[in-house]
Order: sequence, then structure tokens, then C-alpha cells
Amino acid sequence: MSQHPFPKVTVWNEGKHEKISKEIRELYPDGMHHAIAKYLKEKGLSVKTATLDEPEHGLTNDVLADTDVLTWWGHMAHHEVSDKVVERVYRRVMDGMGLIVLHSGHMSKIFRKLMGTGCMLNWREAGEKERIFVVEPGHPIANGLPASFEIEHEEMYGEFFDVPAPETLVFISWFKGGDVFRSGCCYRRGKGKIFYFRPGHETYPTYYHPQVLQVIYNAILWAAPGSGPAIQTGHCPVPFEPLE
Amino acid sequence: MSQHPFPKVTVWNEGKHEKISKEIRELYPDGMHHAIAKYLKEKGLSVKTATLDEPEHGLTNDVLADTDVLTWWGHMAHHEVSDKVVERVYRRVMDGMGLIVLHSGHMSKIFRKLMGTGCMLNWREAGEKERIFVVEPGHPIANGLPASFEIEHEEMYGEFFDVPAPETLVFISWFKGGDVFRSGCCYRRGKGKIFYFRPGHETYPTYYHPQVLQVIYNAILWAAPGSGPAIQTGHCPVPFEPLE
Amino acid sequence: MSQHPFPKVTVWNEGKHEKISKEIRELYPDGMHHAIAKYLKEKGLSVKTATLDEPEHGLTNDVLADTDVLTWWGHMAHHEVSDKVVERVYRRVMDGMGLIVLHSGHMSKIFRKLMGTGCMLNWREAGEKERIFVVEPGHPIANGLPASFEIEHEEMYGEFFDVPAPETLVFISWFKGGDVFRSGCCYRRGKGKIFYFRPGHETYPTYYHPQVLQVIYNAILWAAPGSGPAIQTGHCPVPFEPLE
Amino acid sequence: MSQHPFPKVTVWNEGKHEKISKEIRELYPDGMHHAIAKYLKEKGLSVKTATLDEPEHGLTNDVLADTDVLTWWGHMAHHEVSDKVVERVYRRVMDGMGLIVLHSGHMSKIFRKLMGTGCMLNWREAGEKERIFVVEPGHPIANGLPASFEIEHEEMYGEFFDVPAPETLVFISWFKGGDVFRSGCCYRRGKGKIFYFRPGHETYPTYYHPQVLQVIYNAILWAAPGSGPAIQTGHCPVPFEPLE
Repeated sequence: MSQHPFPKVTVWNEGKHEKISKEIRELYPDGMHHAIAKYLKEKGLSVKTATLDEPEHGLTNDVLADTDVLTWWGHMAHHEVSDKVVERVYRRVMDGMGLIVLHSGHMSKIFRKLMGTGCMLNWREAGEKERIFVVEPGHPIANGLPASFEIEHEEMYGEFFDVPAPETLVFISWFKGGDVFRSGCCYRRGKGKIFYFRPGHETYPTYYHPQVLQVIYNAILWAAPGSGPAIQTGHCPVPFEPLE
Repeated sequence: MSQHPFPKVTVWNEGKHEKISKEIRELYPDGMHHAIAKYLKEKGLSVKTATLDEPEHGLTNDVLADTDVLTWWGHMAHHEVSDKVVERVYRRVMDGMGLIVLHSGHMSKIFRKLMGTGCMLNWREAGEKERIFVVEPGHPIANGLPASFEIEHEEMYGEFFDVPAPETLVFISWFKGGDVFRSGCCYRRGKGKIFYFRPGHETYPTYYHPQVLQVIYNAILWAAPGSGPAIQTGHCPVPFEPLE
Repeated sequence: MSQHPFPKVTVWNEGKHEKISKEIRELYPDGMHHAIAKYLKEKGLSVKTATLDEPEHGLTNDVLADTDVLTWWGHMAHHEVSDKVVERVYRRVMDGMGLIVLHSGHMSKIFRKLMGTGCMLNWREAGEKERIFVVEPGHPIANGLPASFEIEHEEMYGEFFDVPAPETLVFISWFKGGDVFRSGCCYRRGKGKIFYFRPGHETYPTYYHPQVLQVIYNAILWAAPGSGPAIQTGHCPVPFEPLE
Repeated sequence: MSQHPFPKVTVWNEGKHEKISKEIRELYPDGMHHAIAKYLKEKGLSVKTATLDEPEHGLTNDVLADTDVLTWWGHMAHHEVSDKVVERVYRRVMDGMGLIVLHSGHMSKIFRKLMGTGCMLNWREAGEKERIFVVEPGHPIANGLPASFEIEHEEMYGEFFDVPAPETLVFISWFKGGDVFRSGCCYRRGKGKIFYFRPGHETYPTYYHPQVLQVIYNAILWAAPGSGPAIQTGHCPVPFEPLE
């Protein structure tokens, strides 16, 4: 019934931490992207993965043309992402591709370009408890969730989060150390839908957490492209109505 | 894959104009609700109808409990809708039922209660041309639409429209007589999603217009209830975290 | 330079707790309204007070006609506020009067009427610590504030808060017991601006807290009426432009 | 009473059309910036002007540090604005400087960077009538305006306008040729407030129109910086609360 019952997903991961750190590799032997991709496949989605070190970061024109929703995790190598690929992803978002930005992806070139702000925040790596509250219980990204859920150990991200006010704020996080954070933020840019989701530090098993995975899945369905009108702008010399 | 692949729809109509006016009856021999319901059934939805003159206006507890999305058309008899039924519909919206308010339904008791404002507007019955522009081409309610579409003859509704700023504004109307109108307005109240859609004066064949019907269909899919957490509020004497 | 350099404020208080409880009377010997009014007068505003037990709750037509911004605190006696006075306040908000709803005022008749939702929330009286974060540092309601500030002992209000998504969310609260709350919420209804501000339980000296008072003052300036067009709606038989 | 009772304004103009075209020079002998600046001075503001051809486009660090609100008109030479100056203006907006983007400034580097979208639209130069409707009568940018006002001859800008949904939409335009446009759009980025205002084609006397000038003045007051907290983000190793 929906135009995109089975969105095609590309799970993008910088993929550096997993190579460098034995501890992280033990958590995610094939990289965080594989943990996410495995879950999404089990839910019935069509899923590819791509990483920084592949040619064109795995995001060729063909791959992007065949992607309905792109998920993005990056941290230590944002600057290594080529401007050309950023521009390519940007064009696809304008054209309707969904984009799910995960955790430290807040400082990625593509997210900052789409937001128009610095996108920085406060942070602390202390493995503290996070509790995520649903503040839009009727939103599709809240499907299947309880009123709140906990992540036992996570990096802290705290306000102020330097983004435009989200068009819809779905989640707010509580942290044991005394901070709060707007953890689930919906935006629209061009024809594309964007969702920022906070959790996912590389040293914790966050991408095995059932509610975290549920949110990513929900967000993908929400961000899948629709079949609204193409963006066509420019000179329109002939008016709809006579001017005399 | 969606929680509600086939939302159950109840199409509610005041149903008075069709009984009183021969001209309107010729346009809509079985009432506007049947024109809308027929289209929705052809699209594969499960559809009931209900009207003002039925016991409890056709909106019994059982009917509403079995309704995912309710569409509402009223005009000359808003005051005849019982406060008890309004309260019942309101409770269901809080609980997640979608509500699509059509045209003169802007002055219905239920819409005004949900908006918290007067909901009045400027109007003129002159059969003038309306052109509806999509201003959120990536929104699911714009699915299948062109950048703009026309209705040859409609009642004019003009700004100021006394509603809260819509959370998402999907359509803006142009009228030949010189007015504009926010014609497609999304709101969330409790767990329920609400969409106001402007066209639909009883003396014109608007509910046979393919794009108008497409919008109603799209809005129903958008407004269908999700499976987010129930709204449970009240006294929480036991904190999540120890207070000492 | 501003149209309303010195808004006239009416500080409304239910005023029941202070009469019943010796402890609360010791905190607020003349009632919470006097603590708030005293501060606002010191800031140079023109301030009146009004309470539930006065005739017409102190909110006569004359008083409201001479009020630019009304602040509202109520808790145990929401049901004693007459519907006639609620309607009168509502009309003034539609016409541009600002309304600052404080703490337990979230369940007042006037706030619920303006929101269109149940306005309930989770709560706990345990005197726990609250920390309030600014999430819109450029908003005038954040003037003079630090990035966050603490209230040592307060009643907890936790999500889900059953209101429409605020048009602008200015503050988020962290609570020691593990909850978060959207503590500063801006709305527009008719020509009126509304600000909900969370803190202010009657058993704590919250209305002596410098940042809490600063926020109330800022919100009054923000909510003061402008000089935009009056809301005039209805039949407009003569179009702006010729229809032929 | 306000923190910025007299915002310091810099009126920036590309200033090319006035040099090239005799017709435009007759309309604006000293450039459009002087027409705008003259009005703002008469309203009591402190006003400077700056143009593209000045060193650093007249927007040195010193000038910007002394500017509360910057207005921006550009059209044929957006590409000649140096990236260094764009970055400088961007930093000041992040830090709280207001930015009023006028007419063809929608395609300026600074506006596109702040929006994160293409910012293109439909257009037609046919000197057709525009009627601008207030859709937020309580907003300070609507101060002193009627419910709608007309500009006899203007360039047409029509939807789709490729910007993020405005946080507050204040105006909608009607055009005789059959188009509509979101003509008054408020945004917040970092600590800065941004207002886009549609009218102002160089070949018409739009910047002598009393309501157009009133809107620019109102927008400057609205966009003036507040005294909220500075944006300070980064590593916060010491939590507010003990983690054990």
C-alpha cells in the first residue's frame, strides 16, 4: 500500500575504531555497520553496507541511486570524507533519500551542511547510565517502544546541542551525571527526511540494544522517500493566470 | 511491515445539505460520505460511514473502538453534535485515533476543542478557482501529487485562519479573488494525528476530484495510529534512581 | 521603541495553600503572588495581583482589559475557577493578552482549553534536585541566564507531558530521580502568546530563586501584546480581485 | 528595559544593479541600501551601510563586531562575495547577530549555508500584483500591519521555495499570475535569529513602500541579539553529579 514497503538501506560506517582497537573489535568483530545491518536484514529490509576505506567510501553514484535510506556513523575521520561524496549524498537527500545520522555523526560534514550550524555539544566518556524518554508517543519512530528505556553505559552528550530546533523532537535523554539531551531529532531538507539519533559510542554494545535497534528501524521506515512532486524551480515566464 | 497496513476508516458526514437541497443531492446522491467512502474502498481500505442523524451520530463506543482514522465533514449542524460524542471522539484521538477534518469541519466542536482557538476564517461563496500548492514535497501527504493542482470552482477560505501554527504545513491555496489559505495542516494531540484539509464545499463536485481524494487517502495513511507507548501519567512515588 | 515598553501584569494565584498550611505561609507570608509581584515591581513593571477568593476571582472585565500579561498559579482548586472567568481570560488571550502558566497551572481550565489536550504529566514530591538547561540560547526568555541552573529542592514533573509539541522549547529539566521534562514551552493561540514554566511547588522557596524570577520576567516581556492586525474573520462577499 | 533597545544595524547591498542600470539608478539614486538606511535612521536606529565593492565588502571584523543586525540584499554577484567574509558573517550569526535576508538574497552564500538547502524558487518578472497576508497576527514582525497589504508591481516568487520549513511563518504572498509564496520566514541558528522577507526587486520602488519598510524595521527589533548564555560546548570531564 505504501510506495516504499521495503526501503533499500545502505549502512555507512567510518570503520576505523574497529581496526585500531582490540576492545572495540571484540564488541563488533565485523564493525558496527554489520551489527546494524544484521538486525535490519532480520526485519526484512534490503541492506548494503559501505565504509570509508572503500573506493569513493563505498558511496558511488550507483550505490546512492539504489539507496532509499542511508545511515551514517563517523567519528575520528570526518575530515577524510571527500567533499565530492558529501555533495553526492547531499544531492540525494535533496532528491528524497532518507538520512539517519547516528551518535558522533553529528560532526560529519554531511550533517553540518544540512543543519547550517556547528552541531557541537557537550560530552563525557564515563560510561554513565542514559535513560531515553519518548516525548512524541504518537510518532512512528516511537513504535514498539516503552515510555522510556535505559542504556546502562554510554558516552554522555549534553545540552547545548548546536542544531536548529528539530521540526519534531521524539526523544530526550537523561544522564546520571546531571545532563539532558535532545536525542531524537527530525528534520526535512529538500525532499529528504533526516533523523538524528544520539546513542552509539563505539566502546559499548549499544548497537545490540533492542530498543536502540528498534528506533533505527522505525526511523528508516519514517525516512523512506515518498512519491511527492519533484523539486522543479526556476524561471516560469508563463503565468497560470492571465495578467491582464 | 507497518503496524497498520490497512487502517480502518470511518467517514463521518453531517448529511443535512444532501437531504435539504436538490442540487446537492444531484451531485452526491448518497451524500458526500459515500463519494469519499467509495474511493477509499477502491484503494483497499476498510471503510464504514456514519452520519449525524443515526443514534449517537453513528459514533458509538464500539464503532470508535474499531476506527483507526475518522474523517469529519460538518457545516450547518455543528451545534447538534452531542457533547458526549465529542468527548468520546476526543478520548479516542488522545489514545491515537487519526482525525481528518474536511472543509467546513473547521468549526466543528471536536476540531475547536483540539485546537484551543476559534478556528474561524474568511470565506466567500463565488465558485472561484482554487490552486493548491505543495510546500512539503517530501511529506507522505504529498505522495502522488504534482507541484500544484487546481479546483475549478470552490468556496473561498482566506487568511487569517484562526488556528495554532500547524506543526507541518503541507499545502497553501491560491484563490482567484485574491486570497491565500493554509489548506493542509498537520497537528499532533495526545497520541493522535490530525490533518485539516480545506477543499470540499457541498455545492461543488470536489469529492470526485482525483487529487483531493488522493490527499484524503494519503492523510489517512499518515494519521493511522502507531504502536508507541500508551499515555500513562500520574503519581510516580518511586524514582528511577535512588535519591540519596 | 517597543509598543509595550512596560507591560501591565496581573499575577493571579489560587491562594489556598498559603491559608491552609502553616509551613507554606511561613515561606510565603503574603502568598506566592506577592513574592512574584514584588520582584516584578522591582524590575519596573506595573503589577496587580488577584486571587481565587476575590469576587470574580479578581479577574473582572476591567482588570483583564487593563492587563497585558497574566501569570497563573493554581493547584488544589482548579475546579473552583468559574467557567465564565475562564471564557473571559480565553477571549483576552485570543485578543493578544500574554499568559504565563506556572507549575501546577498545567491542569488549570484555561491552559487545558488553550492546549486541546489533557495536560497531565508524571509527578513526585520528594524534594529532589532539578537542573534546568537552556536549549534556545538566542531566545529572549533565556536572557541573562547561564547555560543551566539548579533548584536544590523541587517537586518532580516528568515526561510524558501531555501537551502539543511546543512551538519553541526553551528549557529542559533534569531531575535527580531519573526524569526529564520540557520545562519552558512557548505557544501562540489567536493573537496571544503563552509560556508554560515548570518550577514552583508551594512547599519550596522557588519563587525567591533569582533565575526562576528572571525567567518569569523575561517571559512577560516576550508575551506582551504586539500591535499586529486584529483578528477579523467572516463573510467577505467582495473579492480583492475581479472574478471575471 | 530591553537588553538592546537600539540595535545597531548594518544594511548590506551588492550595489551592482544601481551602477549598471539607469532605470534602477533613477529609482534608487544612492542604491537600495540608502533607501532602507534612511528609513531606519528616521525610526531612531543606529545604521551603517556596506557594499560589495568596498574592501572586505565593507564587512570587516570591526564592522561586524559592532553590528547587532545585518540586512542582506544581493542578486547578480552572489559568487563575488568572498568565502572568508561569508564565514565571518556566519560566525557572528552563531554568536547572536541577527540577519535579515531580503528578496534575491535567498540565493546568497550566507543564506544557503545557514539553511542547508538549495534555496531556489520559481520566479517571473512581469510586474504583477502581490498581496501579502499576515498569518501570525500576534508576532512582533506583524506590528503595525493590516491583515494584508498590496504591492502593485513586483517580481513573482512562487512555491516550491526550497528552504527548511520556517520555525515561524509570518507572511504568505498571493500573486496575480496564480502563485503563492512563504514570504516571511523566521529561523534560529546558533544564537542568531534569521528572517527572510520576499519583496524587493530592484526595478520597483518596493523599498519606499511603508509596510515593506515597517516589516524590515520590525524584523530588526525581533532579530536583535539577546543576553542568553554563550554557546560553550566540548569536553566536560567533571559531571554535575557524582557518578558513583
